[in-house]
Amino acid sequence: MKQTLLAIALLGAFGAATAQSSVTVYGTLDAGLIKKTDTTLAIGKRDNNKLGFKGVEDLGNGLKALFQLEIRYEPDTGTVESNSRPLFQGQSRVGLQGGFGMVRLGRGTTALMDSIDAFEPWNGVPSVAGFKTDLTVAGYSSDPLSPAGNSGNRFSNALFYTTPEMAGFQLNATVGTKEANGGPALTGRGTALAPQYSAGAEASANPFSLSATYKNGPFAALGAYERNAIETKIWAAGGSIMVMPELKLMATYSRQDRDHSAALNPQTKAWVAGANYTMGSGKLLAGYGQKSPDGAVKVKEASLGYEYNLSKRTYVYADVSDKKAATSVKFYSVGVHHNF
Amino acid sequence: MKQTLLAIALLGAFGAATAQSSVTVYGTLDAGLIKKTDTTLAIGKRDNNKLGFKGVEDLGNGLKALFQLEIRYEPDTGTVESNSRPLFQGQSRVGLQGGFGMVRLGRGTTALMDSIDAFEPWNGVPSVAGFKTDLTVAGYSSDPLSPAGNSGNRFSNALFYTTPEMAGFQLNATVGTKEANGGPALTGRGTALAPQYSAGAEASANPFSLSATYKNGPFAALGAYERNAIETKIWAAGGSIMVMPELKLMATYSRQDRDHSAALNPQTKAWVAGANYTMGSGKLLAGYGQKSPDGAVKVKEASLGYEYNLSKRTYVYADVSDKKAATSVKFYSVGVHHNF
Amino acid sequence: MKQTLLAIALLGAFGAATAQSSVTVYGTLDAGLIKKTDTTLAIGKRDNNKLGFKGVEDLGNGLKALFQLEIRYEPDTGTVESNSRPLFQGQSRVGLQGGFGMVRLGRGTTALMDSIDAFEPWNGVPSVAGFKTDLTVAGYSSDPLSPAGNSGNRFSNALFYTTPEMAGFQLNATVGTKEANGGPALTGRGTALAPQYSAGAEASANPFSLSATYKNGPFAALGAYERNAIETKIWAAGGSIMVMPELKLMATYSRQDRDHSAALNPQTKAWVAGANYTMGSGKLLAGYGQKSPDGAVKVKEASLGYEYNLSKRTYVYADVSDKKAATSVKFYSVGVHHNF
Repeated sequence: MKQTLLAIALLGAFGAATAQSSVTVYGTLDAGLIKKTDTTLAIGKRDNNKLGFKGVEDLGNGLKALFQLEIRYEPDTGTVESNSRPLFQGQSRVGLQGGFGMVRLGRGTTALMDSIDAFEPWNGVPSVAGFKTDLTVAGYSSDPLSPAGNSGNRFSNALFYTTPEMAGFQLNATVGTKEANGGPALTGRGTALAPQYSAGAEASANPFSLSATYKNGPFAALGAYERNAIETKIWAAGGSIMVMPELKLMATYSRQDRDHSAALNPQTKAWVAGANYTMGSGKLLAGYGQKSPDGAVKVKEASLGYEYNLSKRTYVYADVSDKKAATSVKFYSVGVHHNF
Repeated sequence: MKQTLLAIALLGAFGAATAQSSVTVYGTLDAGLIKKTDTTLAIGKRDNNKLGFKGVEDLGNGLKALFQLEIRYEPDTGTVESNSRPLFQGQSRVGLQGGFGMVRLGRGTTALMDSIDAFEPWNGVPSVAGFKTDLTVAGYSSDPLSPAGNSGNRFSNALFYTTPEMAGFQLNATVGTKEANGGPALTGRGTALAPQYSAGAEASANPFSLSATYKNGPFAALGAYERNAIETKIWAAGGSIMVMPELKLMATYSRQDRDHSAALNPQTKAWVAGANYTMGSGKLLAGYGQKSPDGAVKVKEASLGYEYNLSKRTYVYADVSDKKAATSVKFYSVGVHHNF
Repeated sequence: MKQTLLAIALLGAFGAATAQSSVTVYGTLDAGLIKKTDTTLAIGKRDNNKLGFKGVEDLGNGLKALFQLEIRYEPDTGTVESNSRPLFQGQSRVGLQGGFGMVRLGRGTTALMDSIDAFEPWNGVPSVAGFKTDLTVAGYSSDPLSPAGNSGNRFSNALFYTTPEMAGFQLNATVGTKEANGGPALTGRGTALAPQYSAGAEASANPFSLSATYKNGPFAALGAYERNAIETKIWAAGGSIMVMPELKLMATYSRQDRDHSAALNPQTKAWVAGANYTMGSGKLLAGYGQKSPDGAVKVKEASLGYEYNLSKRTYVYADVSDKKAATSVKFYSVGVHHNF
């Protein structure tokens, strides 16, 4: 595990390690051309770009140890995601799996954020044409006390537990510590001089996330609830049905409640409905949704997409989207998505 | 591609991924001792240090999907290159290859910068003894609107196209978008208060790079042209000949034109000539070049190097160099270069 | 080594590289629950977390080329270690090994810091329950002129030499250059306005580290000496004995001398004694130590730990520790340690 007494024994360690092959290197490289209203043509992404390292060790008696480390990056500039996020923005978790389910420690997407993708017509990709980031979760952020620019659907310093599937049911739970993560001050119900959460504040309550999923033949359903480090709450429900083998219909409804930190208009509601239609190697995606923040203008988004599989690992895609709020943004993209 | 409905299915994904081995991990670790006039003895590098991940997927019918991600780092301090460059400074590209050639999206070296290495006696390594960075390209930078300290021979946000080789001919083309990359203000033909390019400016024209190479038995030739995001232009020509199997002679000429951003003395011309001579496991490198900036003192550099191959992947080297401009710098280095 | 004339030849390189498998990906993911006096329950680590890349190439005639690159990270937040350290904080070294021993260039732990772990009851892990960082080395830092927050047991810009083992004896030596690494100003024996070491200063003497180890059946011994870039010195001695196959006793004594940079109370002495007791798949760790800084309050630490091996690569652990100085800190942790 550590060096032996004699550093030259390193070579033995080198030799032994070569035989062991416990790490799988995997990832995604997705890049395309993007045009948005009033911005220059750009190279961008549709999906998150990942370079990951993972492994499973069989401990015997049905027990397994597992780890996963996932770098996120921007292929157009070669930087880590958003040029400032953690190296292993995707996830960094270690844990055990057995008859009891799976328990992991570290950082990763919360139970709610993880489970809802299957009910979103773009399957959770961050493309402007997708709905996940903004509409599907009613603009909610899982991680408001981390540094600005950090992602909004993860817990740091958390324990992740997933039950086995039982007759189609499965429960997910994520609980975070109150540890401070170095975020900026948040005014909240305080004032600029006396913010409700000062810079680098600890959580005022343990953040947690719960989701329950149920699957029965062509039907699937989701119920989920989450509370973040500043006690903003969200609950979400989703359902999907395969009306025929080629056609999946799906919808979500979610409601965000910021009453702990917002004095006015704490509620935001959102719904999204969509369809995936498979045609040979192609797949058509369609979705429509609305977000209704209390006391602010409603957001309406309609999107249409097409994926064409060149193989099981590689597809090309085209997306168009129209998003209306105070201003309106039209979005077009074409690109290639490659898993490795 | 994404999680299934149930997170516990992760384990299935783990298992499957282990069988798939689509990623090659590769790289270079080059470190040596360096002594320059008036600086302390240092540990440094001769070549760029890389840790990369790449793969090719056969899509059938001669079509291939390919990706490449390349970390650049400094082995003497363990940091990413220059302690500030993007994580995947080397490149981050995804694309397709077929009968039409190769098309890629992302970030990487431009057509000119990529093609000219074969005509430079140190084959493009960034050692002070080499000529690439400064003399071979007449001090030109491909990327003036990126953050300070960034490298000068890449395009971010670009499309890269390479034709197949046809009777010894091959064309390379790189076209970038006008996207802003967060660089500092550039005074140019403006003033300090009203710089020609403000901080974080977009390109004033699409940057592009073109190169054509031709190979015929012992002869090879290059012609290339590039224009960057602030419309500085460079054209370059190169040629090489294997006068005998052990001896390669080569030369380049290049001319940089900054007339879009420099009111005075926009022209810089440079030429480099050199030779590589193979002797068993050893190789002798020699080069001489001059750079002539309009209205500024000429730069003259002479270098001599020796590489001794311990294997196909590992060699030791020694370089000496003498560079004269307003002041003169003598440079000595010895080190080891290991590919993995 | 570099691109051929024609970039499309890249694909050939891709193909060839796939066959070559010279890189071992390895690492450690350790995460657990931590509770300290007067701090909130936290997710933390016991050991350093690593993701590494290493390889050995056989050059024939007993000569080998070797490289090692090691990322360090925090699994609870996904960042690089301390959120600011070099990407390859663990090490970045390349070298040759043969009958003469092993010589490497780059950055890594010094001879003293590397050799002393085998004489520390927690084997050098950075857990609060361990003694390495603070008591075992009497609070000494190997790298005072690097950026603040950098680790204290490495040399950047160094040459590492290890002899072969000869009749149980082995020597390690590390020598650094005087290169500046961009650290903050250190007042030392100067004043705030005229610090002894200005920001970004070079070393005032070459830092070096020497250690000698001896192993004979159940006995092992260590003697070591090191001087850092600001001429702080440390010498350390250690010994261990396997009194029975299950029980290892060990102790270290060290003395730090800051007389080059501290006008008052330059001496710090420390000793640590401990035991490891193996019980089937379990191991009990116990240790006690004191650090005595001249003119400051003594530090006393007592720790107890337990590891239970689930496999050769995975164990769970529990540690408790009580550290008394001006204030007293009690520490508890449980977690899982997984090597891959």
